[in-house]
Amino acid sequence: MKKLVLIRHGESLWNKENRFTGWTDVDLTPRGIEEAHEAGKKLKELGFQFRVAYTSVLKRAIRTLWVILDDMDLMWIPVHRTWRLNEKHYGMLQGLNKVETAEKYGDEQVFLWRRSYDIPPTALDENDPRHPKYDPRYKDLKPEEIPGTEALKNTIERMLPFWENEIRPALIKHNEVLVVAHGNSLRGVVKVLKNISDQDILEMNIPTGIPYVFEFDENMNLVKDEFLADPETLKKLMDAIAAQAKKK
Amino acid sequence: MKKLVLIRHGESLWNKENRFTGWTDVDLTPRGIEEAHEAGKKLKELGFQFRVAYTSVLKRAIRTLWVILDDMDLMWIPVHRTWRLNEKHYGMLQGLNKVETAEKYGDEQVFLWRRSYDIPPTALDENDPRHPKYDPRYKDLKPEEIPGTEALKNTIERMLPFWENEIRPALIKHNEVLVVAHGNSLRGVVKVLKNISDQDILEMNIPTGIPYVFEFDENMNLVKDEFLADPETLKKLMDAIAAQAKKK
Repeated sequence: MKKLVLIRHGESLWNKENRFTGWTDVDLTPRGIEEAHEAGKKLKELGFQFRVAYTSVLKRAIRTLWVILDDMDLMWIPVHRTWRLNEKHYGMLQGLNKVETAEKYGDEQVFLWRRSYDIPPTALDENDPRHPKYDPRYKDLKPEEIPGTEALKNTIERMLPFWENEIRPALIKHNEVLVVAHGNSLRGVVKVLKNISDQDILEMNIPTGIPYVFEFDENMNLVKDEFLADPETLKKLMDAIAAQAKKK
Repeated sequence: MKKLVLIRHGESLWNKENRFTGWTDVDLTPRGIEEAHEAGKKLKELGFQFRVAYTSVLKRAIRTLWVILDDMDLMWIPVHRTWRLNEKHYGMLQGLNKVETAEKYGDEQVFLWRRSYDIPPTALDENDPRHPKYDPRYKDLKPEEIPGTEALKNTIERMLPFWENEIRPALIKHNEVLVVAHGNSLRGVVKVLKNISDQDILEMNIPTGIPYVFEFDENMNLVKDEFLADPETLKKLMDAIAAQAKKK
């Protein structure tokens, strides 16, 4: 049996303030660190033996992974960081909270962005110092790979080659693989694994800090997927995420 | 100008108890974590911009690196862990303190091990559960690569291919490279960089937590090497390490 575990990083400072974060490199809150410990302890209890881990180049995901590896006594396993697992780039929305966004762009536009698979928010200006082209961590990317904004479609499309070329082969080789990333890059993984439609993936919310386990047989057929949380906890978490989108 | 920075991990629990640690996966003490912070802050102040980092598969080195990367806001850089940067394997001495060792093996034998480049301590038995052959982190090594003990010569010989094939090319490509490892694996790097004899390398002690900076010109000629510490601090640290060997 092969096992892939996906974990969305714990609460960050801007999650807490209800701001669009995207590629902004915001750290975890103490609550976010606590969520990571809870995940790490649960995975250790259940006897997971990851042999490789993947994460983004954003510290809220990396720190979540570090806490988990530390708690599992697996600090020694190889860790691969990639921009392809980054959160969706939110363009000009980055830094705005959801109230400010509604005020600035209007409810209708915000609803469109939130409910659209392929319409990206307004892009960051090329001269905006927040544009990733000025960040050394992206300097080896091709210019056309560096986004000033992304629709969910773009996030998933740039994530997929990494899934196909790195994570999936690692799972075939190593049996137990851990991926700690972000709400939207993980939606991409779930979309391909469960063959979810463009519209339905928009409705799927991954709660923070809850290990999402996919089990495969030896031929890499998915046989089971489950969150490691009791159903009641899970429902509360999912409802809370869905409610964020409705808040003014 | 190219810069390589070597750092020996901070104080570990067994350093503090004066026990031979070797490949035992002992964690840092609070003092060891403090040493890592001091190194990280100093490197940040001086404007170092590492683009890749290397460490062993032992948590005292990995945690030292994590603290430094965190303090430098460089959690996103690629990190490569390798057994080739591990501490020297101390065989049957692992776990013994230096007093117990002298009692068990006699002063003369201990002196011989400490002052010999190529005489290893008595090996761990193949059936000893502490033998690295039973540790999953070494399962991809060839059987003949997995040591039950090592002389300094063996440590340096298994480190060298990693220097030649990984670290040196990375330095040519990236200009600033960080290596966080152990007293004896780092001796190997220093030996090759400064062309130090087998006997003289035994006398060279690398203090914990002090960045050791090597500067190279564009043709990879070494132009300068220095510890980032004032001479007085440095002398105290070096004397303290040398004194450990003499203690009963």
